Amino acid sequence: MISGLPMAVPEPGLPARVRIHEVGPRDGLQNEKAIVPAEVKAEFIRRLAAAGLGTVEATSFVHPKWVPQLADAEQLLPLLDGVPARLPVLVPNARGLERARALGAREVAVFGSATESFAKANLNRTVDESLEMFAPVVAGAREAGLAVRGYLSMCFGDPWEGAVPLEQVVRVARRLLDLGCDELSLGDTIGVATPGHVTALLTALNEAGVETGRLAVHFHDTYGQALANTLAALRHGVTTVDASAGGLGGCPYAKSATGNLATEDLVWMLDGLGIDTGVDLGRLTATSVWMAEQLGRPSPSRTVRALSHQEP
Amino acid sequence: MISGLPMAVPEPGLPARVRIHEVGPRDGLQNEKAIVPAEVKAEFIRRLAAAGLGTVEATSFVHPKWVPQLADAEQLLPLLDGVPARLPVLVPNARGLERARALGAREVAVFGSATESFAKANLNRTVDESLEMFAPVVAGAREAGLAVRGYLSMCFGDPWEGAVPLEQVVRVARRLLDLGCDELSLGDTIGVATPGHVTALLTALNEAGVETGRLAVHFHDTYGQALANTLAALRHGVTTVDASAGGLGGCPYAKSATGNLATEDLVWMLDGLGIDTGVDLGRLTATSVWMAEQLGRPSPSRTVRALSHQEP
Repeated sequence: MISGLPMAVPEPGLPARVRIHEVGPRDGLQNEKAIVPAEVKAEFIRRLAAAGLGTVEATSFVHPKWVPQLADAEQLLPLLDGVPARLPVLVPNARGLERARALGAREVAVFGSATESFAKANLNRTVDESLEMFAPVVAGAREAGLAVRGYLSMCFGDPWEGAVPLEQVVRVARRLLDLGCDELSLGDTIGVATPGHVTALLTALNEAGVETGRLAVHFHDTYGQALANTLAALRHGVTTVDASAGGLGGCPYAKSATGNLATEDLVWMLDGLGIDTGVDLGRLTATSVWMAEQLGRPSPSRTVRALSHQEP
Repeated sequence: MISGLPMAVPEPGLPARVRIHEVGPRDGLQNEKAIVPAEVKAEFIRRLAAAGLGTVEATSFVHPKWVPQLADAEQLLPLLDGVPARLPVLVPNARGLERARALGAREVAVFGSATESFAKANLNRTVDESLEMFAPVVAGAREAGLAVRGYLSMCFGDPWEGAVPLEQVVRVARRLLDLGCDELSLGDTIGVATPGHVTALLTALNEAGVETGRLAVHFHDTYGQALANTLAALRHGVTTVDASAGGLGGCPYAKSATGNLATEDLVWMLDGLGIDTGVDLGRLTATSVWMAEQLGRPSPSRTVRALSHQEP
């Protein structure tokens, strides 16, 4: 890293602090072809926490047949004892919640869709049926004192349906929150959003009574828009941003280039804006370089590539 | 492309129209290892103009020994007769201006540095000496009725000096404008800027009497910040943005990952914001795919990769 860069120059109207919700071990690895051993995942999560990430989504309790990359959730969680971070896990249904609770999970997430096409493709259910499936999960988790996050996919565009109307997203968002989700993460699953669209959706949610403080944003960098969209969300007051260490999640040269926003690119911007994240960019980059070696391919994050080539 | 995407949703406070200053054939190809034949460059420029780019920087009249990639400027310009675009060319000194004028160039650009280190490395001169060299070039070009652009490199950070103080940039910027440059392009040559820094520099320039209308921005995507920085500049009122088709200019896996902002990633955002550019994204992407084939390597633009893989 060149000493003193990025230079910290605050921009008026942005938050003083942002919480990064790190999704690399779950959303990143679930889209990698390679199946990573549980011990390597645990080491990855330990290093991410040591780099200052206070929330690291650890794994998913979906049926192992659906996502073989994360079939080792039962082996992984016990390896994470003592990791100093919040470690939410995905649970699709009552059986998943039961498995997660048996392992001592303290935070869970359900994953809904704003569109019928993706609900069908991802959950083999209608949007209504998926919400019915989530209802007892969210209720059960809350009764057990767990924090619950709701993911909402395809908030901006859908590969089958094209542009997704704002009111359709607002309707499903409201219902997920009404089920009892503490926080809602708005996903641009195919990376097509642009900054005005982000502002318009956040405004529409506010008008429907949803407070910005309960919203997180989850951008994909498919068209290179993720960081500009994040800037628009910060300007609107959002303070929770999802990102994936090293930009893990989908190969940039694969058919659908669905990489997540790279945590390092995000931290570079936030450091430059003087926004506190608690993350040490050097340690984080070293972690992503190490993980890229485990996966046998270079990191798609521009910041990781630039920093690791400048400091071999 | 998925029909109807990106969805056009304007963001309040942004300009209605942006002029893209396309630098791929010059700034892009000058940083490619390959030396591209003049006929291929001419075809590239013709296709860019046909895609709706109204300004395409064509080449540079530096000494052929400095930049062998652009040593064919004398062969190239006559091939561009009738191309429906402004075709500025770089000229470092009086000899370069003479060569450019002899070939009928209507617009020229000089390239200064905000830092002593880069002035020395790039021009083998101090900042003052380089301004002395430019003075007769700018005066001569204006006397001949040519439009003159001034480039200012290293406006945000410098690989030798680290962060560059705002007042240092303002001082050199003022002097380039005082020489008679019509427009000034603010370069983040090593890609380290962040949005607050961009806003602060534009504000400092305004306070020194420079109107935003005379300023263009030139961002590199080394750390993935280029589009977020562009958004900050648009919000400040900038309406001229430099970009390179396909993100040409420096291999993303090379030691110094110095890729330009990809024109396609920029157009995706501007289309999404409902900002008029006159560019047809499909034709532009097809041009970059064609050029990538000539160079024998994939485009580093995320939008080009996403669109070309989705529509093989």
